[in-house]
Amino acid sequence: MRWFDNVLTKNLNIKYPIIQAPMASAASLELAAAVSNAGGLGSLGLSYHKLGDILPDYEAVLSMTNHSINLNFMTHKNPRKNDIQAKKYMNEIKKYYEEYKISEIPSLANTTEPFNSKHLDILLKMNPKVVSFHFGLPESNYIKSIKNQNIYIISSATTIKEAKILEDSGADAIIAQGFEAGGHRGTFASSYKEGEIGLFSLLPQIVDATSVPIIAAGGIANGKGIAAAFMLGAKGVQLGTAFLSCPEASVSPLWKNALSESSEKETRITKAFTGRPARGIVNRLLDEMENKTDIIPDFPTVGSVIKPLANAASSKGRDDFLSLWAGQSASMNRNIPAKKLVKLLVEETSSIFKYFRNS
Amino acid sequence: MRWFDNVLTKNLNIKYPIIQAPMASAASLELAAAVSNAGGLGSLGLSYHKLGDILPDYEAVLSMTNHSINLNFMTHKNPRKNDIQAKKYMNEIKKYYEEYKISEIPSLANTTEPFNSKHLDILLKMNPKVVSFHFGLPESNYIKSIKNQNIYIISSATTIKEAKILEDSGADAIIAQGFEAGGHRGTFASSYKEGEIGLFSLLPQIVDATSVPIIAAGGIANGKGIAAAFMLGAKGVQLGTAFLSCPEASVSPLWKNALSESSEKETRITKAFTGRPARGIVNRLLDEMENKTDIIPDFPTVGSVIKPLANAASSKGRDDFLSLWAGQSASMNRNIPAKKLVKLLVEETSSIFKYFRNS
Repeated sequence: MRWFDNVLTKNLNIKYPIIQAPMASAASLELAAAVSNAGGLGSLGLSYHKLGDILPDYEAVLSMTNHSINLNFMTHKNPRKNDIQAKKYMNEIKKYYEEYKISEIPSLANTTEPFNSKHLDILLKMNPKVVSFHFGLPESNYIKSIKNQNIYIISSATTIKEAKILEDSGADAIIAQGFEAGGHRGTFASSYKEGEIGLFSLLPQIVDATSVPIIAAGGIANGKGIAAAFMLGAKGVQLGTAFLSCPEASVSPLWKNALSESSEKETRITKAFTGRPARGIVNRLLDEMENKTDIIPDFPTVGSVIKPLANAASSKGRDDFLSLWAGQSASMNRNIPAKKLVKLLVEETSSIFKYFRNS
Repeated sequence: MRWFDNVLTKNLNIKYPIIQAPMASAASLELAAAVSNAGGLGSLGLSYHKLGDILPDYEAVLSMTNHSINLNFMTHKNPRKNDIQAKKYMNEIKKYYEEYKISEIPSLANTTEPFNSKHLDILLKMNPKVVSFHFGLPESNYIKSIKNQNIYIISSATTIKEAKILEDSGADAIIAQGFEAGGHRGTFASSYKEGEIGLFSLLPQIVDATSVPIIAAGGIANGKGIAAAFMLGAKGVQLGTAFLSCPEASVSPLWKNALSESSEKETRITKAFTGRPARGIVNRLLDEMENKTDIIPDFPTVGSVIKPLANAASSKGRDDFLSLWAGQSASMNRNIPAKKLVKLLVEETSSIFKYFRNS
């Protein structure tokens, strides 16, 4: 049996157990289609979509591929109202608006809705092969409806405890999201600190604690990483940052630039851009908010205030307020088209297994 | 060629590329000898030794094994004097002394000397097969003397930058110490934050950036972990926590107990016990000093003030002030003698390679 022939590829109806992480806006329709056409699993992050845009986008992808596609939604809790915190925060942010001479400071407002009954209706209508959720799973009656249509359900765990909760709540497969991963931490039932576990420790413990297929995520950038994840018991891998450098990804030039210089830079987990911990390349806002975590309002309201600053700075060629999401292996990026990347990852993985064949 | 026949085992004159981490006081002479007799590389942490005790201890180990032994020293900088910080710190700690009714509060004092000319003289006299340094390498003329005697030199890196420095400074092999690792972070030329890189990201990047053999450390607890490290380019592994549960380790009952309950507990990196970041199981002091990092004096002075509290609490059966060093895979410990553990690790590694042989 070849390494990629397993329960996960069988159930997802894909050739290679390589999942492109949804990455919300960064993952374009073209990227998802290219990955699925190459034998992996392309994903669409739909949480920031207007409801009316979801179906057309999914249909656009379907026009580009007839392979399995993963649709992704966020299942965060609605933000708590905290006027004192909000006031302190806006007071802190004001200086940036003054610096960029933006007279109108927007109020904190939700930038995305958690997965709700409207999303559910559209999801059931789209009836994809796979749906994945970030920040836990939706309520049990939603899960039931999704299961009734045989849509495969995936969600992320950052602790062993979370993995057990996901299995008990009906996840068909679980992503073990290591500390190394770029973007939002999937932490939903542990403290964020508890959820900071390196993949070398997290993955084998989740494999031991559950009986569903485990997908490794965080720091995997090439075939060696895929092979290592399989040694630790993974049945699949999810790569985000590695796909960010593909020309199909919708990544702004400043972000692309930061990624290509990432070997000289540091990534860090921060709440500064969205109100929820996420790993990105260190830039001005990340750095300046480092010790002010307490005054940062809940996800997903922060983006409404940061976005205008990001745009203003970007127009002057500065990435100071951009969320430069990236994992700790960002500097290993290849900058090749998604189809080539999937092919290369498979070849590298097969070749490293071959190298150790005579051990 | 079998997986364990490589440049590292050849140069260290050992059978299996499995190194028992020095772990200062926790690694007994018996543990080091047992690991070396089993075909791995046993290590003695000598930094907290009185000068006069080093040679007798080494001779005691030599009476138990005629295989290679690694001697370990710390190469930290001497602490900076900071009276204001010290005053704030002692003020904070006072309450614990009152709680335990200890009338005499000791002053901050060095608990260990960095590797110096006296250590060098003894090292050259002992002439072991291997010496390893934590917190960087000693000055270049020391390195020269050590190299003149063909003693193999190892040190730890927590960033790619540090690995390059170690290679340029004469290290024969480099330990890539992942974020998962228990005990003191080896960070010496990067910020502690920069040095928080998961092994999945750190290891392959250090392998690519250097040309000496790389030893993986952090979160490795069984053969699957060893195989994964080899996939990522390691030529050897260093395990600390996995050996802590061996009966040969000199681990206090309270520490042992915390390790055996580690699946229910969290580990975290803290400066609270020594003044230098190290990963341990969360207990009272770690928790209560969490947001007071700024007032903690430099390593290695903190121990002089914490030790009496640790002893007083321990005598009442409490681990509140004990440094419960452990890595993020602590709950995967086996509780078997060191000889059996080395044998098991080798068998597991061979068996996982065999499992993937037909891939």
